[in-house]
Amino acid sequence: MTHQQRLDGHRAQIETWLNECFQEREPRGDLYDAMYYSLLAGGKRIRPVLVLETCRMCGGDPAAALPFAGAVEMIHTYSLIHDDLPCMDDDDLRRGRPTNHKVYGEATAVLAGDGLLTAAFETMLELPPELPPERALAAAGLLARAAGGRGMVGGQVLDMAGEGHSLSLAEVEELQRLKTGALIAAAAEMGCIVAGGTQEQRQAVRHYAERLGLAFQVRDDILDVVGDEATLGKPIGSDARSEKTTFVTLKGLDACRTLVKRLTGEAIEALAPFGGEGGALCWLAEQLAGREK
Amino acid sequence: MTHQQRLDGHRAQIETWLNECFQEREPRGDLYDAMYYSLLAGGKRIRPVLVLETCRMCGGDPAAALPFAGAVEMIHTYSLIHDDLPCMDDDDLRRGRPTNHKVYGEATAVLAGDGLLTAAFETMLELPPELPPERALAAAGLLARAAGGRGMVGGQVLDMAGEGHSLSLAEVEELQRLKTGALIAAAAEMGCIVAGGTQEQRQAVRHYAERLGLAFQVRDDILDVVGDEATLGKPIGSDARSEKTTFVTLKGLDACRTLVKRLTGEAIEALAPFGGEGGALCWLAEQLAGREK
Repeated sequence: MTHQQRLDGHRAQIETWLNECFQEREPRGDLYDAMYYSLLAGGKRIRPVLVLETCRMCGGDPAAALPFAGAVEMIHTYSLIHDDLPCMDDDDLRRGRPTNHKVYGEATAVLAGDGLLTAAFETMLELPPELPPERALAAAGLLARAAGGRGMVGGQVLDMAGEGHSLSLAEVEELQRLKTGALIAAAAEMGCIVAGGTQEQRQAVRHYAERLGLAFQVRDDILDVVGDEATLGKPIGSDARSEKTTFVTLKGLDACRTLVKRLTGEAIEALAPFGGEGGALCWLAEQLAGREK
Repeated sequence: MTHQQRLDGHRAQIETWLNECFQEREPRGDLYDAMYYSLLAGGKRIRPVLVLETCRMCGGDPAAALPFAGAVEMIHTYSLIHDDLPCMDDDDLRRGRPTNHKVYGEATAVLAGDGLLTAAFETMLELPPELPPERALAAAGLLARAAGGRGMVGGQVLDMAGEGHSLSLAEVEELQRLKTGALIAAAAEMGCIVAGGTQEQRQAVRHYAERLGLAFQVRDDILDVVGDEATLGKPIGSDARSEKTTFVTLKGLDACRTLVKRLTGEAIEALAPFGGEGGALCWLAEQLAGREK
């Protein structure tokens, strides 16, 4: 099995799980339509893939980690819906499709986000019969910390506050560490927790994911300047229009390309303790470093 | 100790806990200010009081239930912040003070709601050393189900969808069962779960809380017609302005007053298995039936 086949297998499992996650719920106006619309919009599924693969790398059954992988993707999706709202980034387009509030209206978009955030916890807390309750609590608690005011939501507040001001490199790093890095790092560590991995394994994948998350964001900033709109599925230049300080405005394109390479190398190094078992995630880091969307 | 003193004691514990819940968190723009603004706006604290008192009634230590009581109040508070947004009910005043988005702006109000919802789970999942993890998982899972699309968020969707249409009595009951009833019933049951109460005890307090929640909502509809604006801290007549079908529009004031009495009687009856230990919650049901705010 190639690295790509392994990760594609995870991705297929996740798509199936996400497609079925709200099947048993009653229709409730267009709430679940709006939740599904964004959840099934076909993102890269990096976070849930990390959950499943680190679970496997630590000797666990990836299937046991599926509700946790799904929960991370629900939280990522809710954050995109709320970020796109008119009172936030006011975006009309996401992954080549109209944003949630453009299709369902603002009120339903707010509630779809609230519903996804809540469903993430509902999913994780449904007492899976085989999983020791301590592990479920630890993994869900880790995700809650990463998603809240000391993590993703805190990063979004810094992001809104930073618009129209110039930020220092340290401030941009802190903002991105919270806004995108915290959830990616939590995803990687949750898979280990579900598998019952050691502290050393948890630290290694966390270190990997922190470097990966930062590289991902720097690449995002590069693509917002030199990317292809059709490939990206959204207009470029949005950072400039909202006067955001980015890695590119601070360091320039060339230095950013070098930085992505350095961070990717550090991410790969962090997986050394896993030997060959870390191969798929090394491959993923290299893929993301060169991505065009 | 009188019933009132017992419940006032719970309320004081809750206020202290809520005042201190974000002390160790870093300042993050005005996010925590906005979260505290609404969390400490001085509501009746019915839901967290239910958590602590049912915990005590089932032989548990109310202090062990404090994080769960606080979590319910955080979720109730986040729902008020999001409900008041311009794209939802567009309210300027809540408990006699400007609504969250009027003070902090819409973007921060959305994020303060998201932050409170996430903090509720963070709080419950912090692995309290004495509590068996199965109980923490069960109580947090119950709250997640009650707060999501099959509970409170689903009720809010029905509420938005119902504006400007006339609903049947069954539709209004279903809407209120989800929008306000689900969280109140979960609060009561969570205290039992934390205490390790029996299935019979859980069923009894759930039945009590369902009747109490419905009585509460009917009384709310009455007060929106005949209440005193200064006492309520908000304008009356808001249901009529947004063309909402309420228990009063469906049944009239007199029948609603009778209904509140009947539901309150049923709530009190449901606590019979607890004998004298149920006294404080019986007293609470009677207080709420006659409330003017």
